[in-house]
Amino acid sequence: MPFEPTDYLPYDFANRRHIGPSPEEMAEMLDVVGASDLDALIDDTVPKSIRQKEPLDFGRPMSERELLHHMRENAAKNKVFTSLIGQGYHGTVTPPAIQRNILENPAWYTAYTPYQPEISQGRLEALLNFQTMISDLTGMEIANASLLDESTACAEAMTMAQRVSKSKAKAFFVDRDCHPQNIEVVKTRAEPLGIEVIVGNPDKMDPEQVFGALFQYPGTYGHVRDFTDQIAALHEHKGIGVVCADPMSLTLLKEPGAMGADIAIGSTQRFGVPVGYGGPHAAYMACRDAYKRAMPGRIIGVSIDSHGNRAYRLSLQTREQHIRREKANSNVCTAQALLAVMASMYAVFHGPKGLKAIAQRIHRKTVRLARGLEEAGFKVDPQAFFDTITVDVGPLQAAVLKSARDEGINLRPVGEKRVGISLDETTRPATIEGVWRAFGIVRKDDDFAPEYRVPKKMHRTSEFLTHPIFHMNRAETEMMRYMRRLADRDLALDRAMIPLGSCTMKLNSAAEMMPLTWPEYAFVHPFVPVEQAQGYAAMIEDLSDKLCQITGYDAISMQPNSGAQGEYAGLLTIAAYHKARGEAHRNICLIPMSAHGTNPASAMMVGWKVVPVKSAANGDIDLDDFREKAEKHSENLAGCMITYPSTHGVFEETVMDVCAITHEHGGQVYIDGANMNAMVGLSRPGDLGGDVSHLNLHKTFAIPHGGGGPGMGPIGVKAHLKPHLPGHPETGGSEGPVSAAPYGSASILTISWAYCLMMGGAGLTQATRVAILNANYIAKRLEGAFDVLYRGPTGRVAHECIIDTRPFAESAGVTVDDIAKRLMDAGFHAPTMSWPVAGTLMIEPTESETKAELDRFCEAMLAIREEIRDIEEGRIDAENNPLKMAPHTMEDLVREWDRPYSREQGCFPPGAFRVDKYWPPVNRVDNAWGDRNLVCICPPMEDYADAAE
Amino acid sequence: MPFEPTDYLPYDFANRRHIGPSPEEMAEMLDVVGASDLDALIDDTVPKSIRQKEPLDFGRPMSERELLHHMRENAAKNKVFTSLIGQGYHGTVTPPAIQRNILENPAWYTAYTPYQPEISQGRLEALLNFQTMISDLTGMEIANASLLDESTACAEAMTMAQRVSKSKAKAFFVDRDCHPQNIEVVKTRAEPLGIEVIVGNPDKMDPEQVFGALFQYPGTYGHVRDFTDQIAALHEHKGIGVVCADPMSLTLLKEPGAMGADIAIGSTQRFGVPVGYGGPHAAYMACRDAYKRAMPGRIIGVSIDSHGNRAYRLSLQTREQHIRREKANSNVCTAQALLAVMASMYAVFHGPKGLKAIAQRIHRKTVRLARGLEEAGFKVDPQAFFDTITVDVGPLQAAVLKSARDEGINLRPVGEKRVGISLDETTRPATIEGVWRAFGIVRKDDDFAPEYRVPKKMHRTSEFLTHPIFHMNRAETEMMRYMRRLADRDLALDRAMIPLGSCTMKLNSAAEMMPLTWPEYAFVHPFVPVEQAQGYAAMIEDLSDKLCQITGYDAISMQPNSGAQGEYAGLLTIAAYHKARGEAHRNICLIPMSAHGTNPASAMMVGWKVVPVKSAANGDIDLDDFREKAEKHSENLAGCMITYPSTHGVFEETVMDVCAITHEHGGQVYIDGANMNAMVGLSRPGDLGGDVSHLNLHKTFAIPHGGGGPGMGPIGVKAHLKPHLPGHPETGGSEGPVSAAPYGSASILTISWAYCLMMGGAGLTQATRVAILNANYIAKRLEGAFDVLYRGPTGRVAHECIIDTRPFAESAGVTVDDIAKRLMDAGFHAPTMSWPVAGTLMIEPTESETKAELDRFCEAMLAIREEIRDIEEGRIDAENNPLKMAPHTMEDLVREWDRPYSREQGCFPPGAFRVDKYWPPVNRVDNAWGDRNLVCICPPMEDYADAAE
Repeated sequence: MPFEPTDYLPYDFANRRHIGPSPEEMAEMLDVVGASDLDALIDDTVPKSIRQKEPLDFGRPMSERELLHHMRENAAKNKVFTSLIGQGYHGTVTPPAIQRNILENPAWYTAYTPYQPEISQGRLEALLNFQTMISDLTGMEIANASLLDESTACAEAMTMAQRVSKSKAKAFFVDRDCHPQNIEVVKTRAEPLGIEVIVGNPDKMDPEQVFGALFQYPGTYGHVRDFTDQIAALHEHKGIGVVCADPMSLTLLKEPGAMGADIAIGSTQRFGVPVGYGGPHAAYMACRDAYKRAMPGRIIGVSIDSHGNRAYRLSLQTREQHIRREKANSNVCTAQALLAVMASMYAVFHGPKGLKAIAQRIHRKTVRLARGLEEAGFKVDPQAFFDTITVDVGPLQAAVLKSARDEGINLRPVGEKRVGISLDETTRPATIEGVWRAFGIVRKDDDFAPEYRVPKKMHRTSEFLTHPIFHMNRAETEMMRYMRRLADRDLALDRAMIPLGSCTMKLNSAAEMMPLTWPEYAFVHPFVPVEQAQGYAAMIEDLSDKLCQITGYDAISMQPNSGAQGEYAGLLTIAAYHKARGEAHRNICLIPMSAHGTNPASAMMVGWKVVPVKSAANGDIDLDDFREKAEKHSENLAGCMITYPSTHGVFEETVMDVCAITHEHGGQVYIDGANMNAMVGLSRPGDLGGDVSHLNLHKTFAIPHGGGGPGMGPIGVKAHLKPHLPGHPETGGSEGPVSAAPYGSASILTISWAYCLMMGGAGLTQATRVAILNANYIAKRLEGAFDVLYRGPTGRVAHECIIDTRPFAESAGVTVDDIAKRLMDAGFHAPTMSWPVAGTLMIEPTESETKAELDRFCEAMLAIREEIRDIEEGRIDAENNPLKMAPHTMEDLVREWDRPYSREQGCFPPGAFRVDKYWPPVNRVDNAWGDRNLVCICPPMEDYADAAE
Repeated sequence: MPFEPTDYLPYDFANRRHIGPSPEEMAEMLDVVGASDLDALIDDTVPKSIRQKEPLDFGRPMSERELLHHMRENAAKNKVFTSLIGQGYHGTVTPPAIQRNILENPAWYTAYTPYQPEISQGRLEALLNFQTMISDLTGMEIANASLLDESTACAEAMTMAQRVSKSKAKAFFVDRDCHPQNIEVVKTRAEPLGIEVIVGNPDKMDPEQVFGALFQYPGTYGHVRDFTDQIAALHEHKGIGVVCADPMSLTLLKEPGAMGADIAIGSTQRFGVPVGYGGPHAAYMACRDAYKRAMPGRIIGVSIDSHGNRAYRLSLQTREQHIRREKANSNVCTAQALLAVMASMYAVFHGPKGLKAIAQRIHRKTVRLARGLEEAGFKVDPQAFFDTITVDVGPLQAAVLKSARDEGINLRPVGEKRVGISLDETTRPATIEGVWRAFGIVRKDDDFAPEYRVPKKMHRTSEFLTHPIFHMNRAETEMMRYMRRLADRDLALDRAMIPLGSCTMKLNSAAEMMPLTWPEYAFVHPFVPVEQAQGYAAMIEDLSDKLCQITGYDAISMQPNSGAQGEYAGLLTIAAYHKARGEAHRNICLIPMSAHGTNPASAMMVGWKVVPVKSAANGDIDLDDFREKAEKHSENLAGCMITYPSTHGVFEETVMDVCAITHEHGGQVYIDGANMNAMVGLSRPGDLGGDVSHLNLHKTFAIPHGGGGPGMGPIGVKAHLKPHLPGHPETGGSEGPVSAAPYGSASILTISWAYCLMMGGAGLTQATRVAILNANYIAKRLEGAFDVLYRGPTGRVAHECIIDTRPFAESAGVTVDDIAKRLMDAGFHAPTMSWPVAGTLMIEPTESETKAELDRFCEAMLAIREEIRDIEEGRIDAENNPLKMAPHTMEDLVREWDRPYSREQGCFPPGAFRVDKYWPPVNRVDNAWGDRNLVCICPPMEDYADAAE
């Protein structure tokens, strides 16, 4: 009847949009898992002892419309000035076609890191374009597929230099003209590693004294210097030369490779990626071929598939996802894939001619600006520059800065008496005239002939971006189709579940993604005066409050821009705390065997020694071993790093004991937040005894994975650690910074904030509960066919479950890889493979998947089990069967079919969509071949006869 | 060298982004067509006599960034008030997932009308959902897939009623409580057709006097009346009952079907489509099954493909694209496909429970508002209402309206003493309190118990949206995937050229598409006070100026919201001109045989008689015949309708003679703007002698086709016709309106404006030149293999070319249909089929396609020619060959293959992408079967076992 009251809330985001299963579906699922209701299941699964006392309370959750209204009101608090601050962040024009078709397209932003190359060929190609672009622009032999930001890239370059240098020196030289945040992040990184950082004038550098040196190019105050001599001197003493270069300037200026550099790094932000109050943007790293195996980050390479066709893949992958624990030389785990894709597309859009034209314009504008100032009698520095100058204003610095702000322009204070100005591709004549007015000059920007201020010897003489991809037709029609073709080759969340254990691939809703690209969030320079960023301040404060309530911590630092960065920052905080208490000697870190690989790597980075703790048979931490080791190292115990619920997907009841033991021996407890999606609203790491945790906002708090980044890894700490959180040269604090920007990749905080505001406390808690239900439902449905490893005492799993595929290796010669590839035929991304236990699959469905999708997955898995049985029982050949031949491609269908199973069985296993079938574009990729024949730039032209034959 | 000057302009939108071929490609193409340069080709093609004297001059074109900046500045001139005006336009919440994944997704918005069903199954399904939704909500047996707007739907309903009624009466009754624009558009339509419109109180209607009646439900002032008795009385006298109903109200109120209505119409705007200052939105029409063949517009139906699988298609298509010229009963040619898709998705998102809950909320809020007013002593009308009330304010109407505006709220003036208020799903308590304050009432919106003001007898008692599609899981994850799956089934411009003659499927750039969804454009009610819409006013003025300069006309009316509407409006303008001069008897319209089918249909709609004029052998207008007929009808000559360049794709030199002859005999010249893409910047219809033209902004000016709408068809006129342009009850004017809103689908004017601003005059002209080059290139490359019909005297074609496939029917039994379907295998949408000449293909590549894409198309066509030759020469069976079996699907590859050609040849003909192959989801659709077994709502549940088997 039309007017009977209803309890149906059409705008309830949590239960209507975010959480997958409907109430009816949940009832059916509870039936399957054998729980009377969701409360009972949760009581059964999450030990009472660790449950939080009070429910989360964020007030009334917002509807999507309210959220967008709220975000607009908040956005209005940010003032969008024209920032000519430079210092590594520049205005840039994001081509609208890239914004719409990549940044705002779920096919790109919901993809996972391309560990499964067969279903990632699109973004692998885009990232290979990125590497080619970087390699060309820097004049280096090999480049990686991005790093977190320029400052961390500097730090990574330093440690890499140390690894590859044959010098015995313990010091690292840093050009005083590096951006301040680069210098500080390098210092932060150097200290616990015992590296002495010498900041100084490159002309005064003593090459004998250092194992390497870092030069900024152009310098933070605009200088364009040739470091050829310095690098040659370094080489004479077995040192390593690192040049941190602006890629835009490299279209005109002599490239690092031509100076003899060993490593080049920098930021590609100004290649079409908005500043976003600090990020996310893709930093790059390139190096000599000889050093490639020491280079951190991901490297895309070219290999072949099982039919010998070209296929892209992650090269040298063992260095990375499977970071070799204590031997790791970096904990870098996330890249900035989405932003690297954008930057590479920007280069494809403009091509070398376009980029050069843009760079020339920037430079000519800067020359005009300088001339206007000089003609008015100002002293402009330096003589040779690209886009940045400084002006001596004597005691009037504050007055000029204010006068510029009155024009809506931010300039940069340099020292006490100078003002810095950096122009970019968005600078218009009106801006130049506004700057002049700020200096009291009234004139028009139209009476100068083109002029250049780069001495001939600094001109670039080599070609770049010669590869055909950078010379393709640049009409938007063609570009749009190229972006679509690449997107279609990949399998992302917009087509299927990605049940990756420990990676929490949940819904990234459209409403959450919208504010990000609004000008008020996108166009704020990270170093603007705080009064211009009040919208950001309000967001960061409110989101921090909510995260504190969720975690039981007292303070949050938003600076770390990845999970691994969060770990590192958290451990630095603990180390600083010990030091402040006069216990700097504490350097032992207890880490269970089952920990994330990044944990020991992070511990190494703060100079600690890792002491592994055994796991009991059920996967739990072996409490006796833990106690024994804590006692043994009591004197020097810095702390422990644990994951909760455990990486085995179990809520261990002993977690509070572990914390208590650690505290007893003077250590601090780091609880890894990777599995926070099983805790939100139910249990708080701060209550369990944790002192620090990082939160993967890109796992638990709805930031999309972007095909391998961006991420955000803020840390929460107890009150006693708050004074020791990361500082920043722009915002102060007693400790050094860990990231280039004070609040990391601030612009994507909008996503997590939106998520919290729309979910509300009850919604977040319900999401956790349903995540646990979904995992238990899968565990139950697969029971019998597969062994589920590691359950809690009541037989429940937490938010993920591990199934054992090791028995099949013996019984049928089927590996976990075969199963993963076969799942592609059914239209799925495989679960996490061989982690934390080799030969297993870890499945995390998250709360966002519906029952129908879980069922589709279970049917695919059960059918795979039957295919294994066919081998076990001799009904099909052990080598020529659907598992070994997986994934199947369209080409297989067209080819002669000489297999002992049908085309139908091969290509349309249970779970596969019929009409909407996803086809992997290549057959199984040969990883070994790719590592043996390492090619990390785009293949030559003749390989590109693919399109229309 | 880095600093040598370059003429490369990276931000040149016209030449860098919009125009497909690069300069190098153009040079190669000119070589092929045998022209020394582009100037020479154009001189060769476009007769000197018709060339315009002055180049277009719009000042410096804007870059994408400048454009977006400009659009934001202009947007700020619109004031976004909360409009409670109602009158057919309501606030609504567009679910962000629908906005991102449909409205802002080129896979949806660049698609063409689904005439080729095999490559349109996605949007056909979405439109079938729309029909099912309308059918259910209205309680009618059959619904169409949308109409232009509610007012034109009223007019269409009137003429349909006249067609199906067996009454002899000549009058049509219109409820005085219809929205004023509905009444006026009906009157406009009725007048030339000789229908008397009686506006009055339904209770006083004399059913004997009329052939039908139109009732608004709820009424424009809020009344909820039962029209059962009136309709019964109409039926007694063979009259037709039409109910114009708000679909949101129908979730609670007795539906038109239950009142016995024969036709139901209305607007689905409030189902998630922003008001947009008037449009675009999808109107609907539903009717009794008995009348379906008289229903205008498109109807999606269910049929089978050649393997007996379910496939959707346009039903009864002969009524439509191939409008039967003089016998046409409507000139409706465009629908509002994209908006209908959005509205249907809104219903899928919310389901019946959600829609009912939303409607209940709206109603309860309206009751609370009324009670607050009543308790303060105001008299509120009516007693029974859904969402709209009026309040008696005596002489204080202006004061209350102003007081509301001070609250940021627009109310509706009703008569002299009343104020109308309509609430909607976006109304918040603060809004209700704001309205109260406008009436001097200070109270909180929280002290009323839920209450309903709909009498029991008006309650809906039937179920609706019972089909499973409206009960699918509504989590965003599932919804997003559903939208993606549907999108992937279709072939749109984001994957391939759509070379449709006369449809000009050019690039719809991302930058052009962005402003549309900004709140300042999206959320403005069409009837707000003009001072709130200054951004719109400025845009309309500037765009009009530019279109005047382009066409050589003196004034523009933006009201017509489709090309056919433009024709109709243009002819009405001519008719009004004749009438004003005392020559109302002029009613003869000369139309060449080759005209668009809509031309004669439009002429019929203004009550004119169509006199066809012969074509000469070369396709040109037969000037002698034209002269003869003009002389013969001199006395009564109203005018002529011609297309330029001709529908045969030729610049006829005689066009000025045709115009002169027409004028000589007192007629006016209508030049159809369908082929304007061959003229912009080169030739102006106004200079040729045209008095009126419509412009298809969705062809020539970059508005995307949206899968079959929206469109915009503004008309340009010479000064003498300006006083006779369409008026509107809200904005005045001496003539009646043709559309519901004064500026038609105003919000998409942003697209055409952006296009003009970024292209600039020179860019637009270059686009025209390249469109001509592209067409001539295709004509040249296909020469020899196919006969190109109709060329100009120098052997050139204009912007499109017609190739003759008739010889193959005899030589090989191959039809134009076979070729069209075979092109799908190569990943192309077919060119226009059998128009203007049966058995031909008309190819229009537009300027946006690159040489590579043109080559891909030509290769596909040439390969098809060879396949025909194989049949001709007996190398392959005439029935079992790739042409007859086309299109090929994945299923064909999986099935037993028993064909005389290979899988490879079948599925990967030349032109087809290999890795990025597009697969039609169904085999060839059986049109006859579908028309014999007409099913126009979603198939029952058991047919939906498709997904994961």
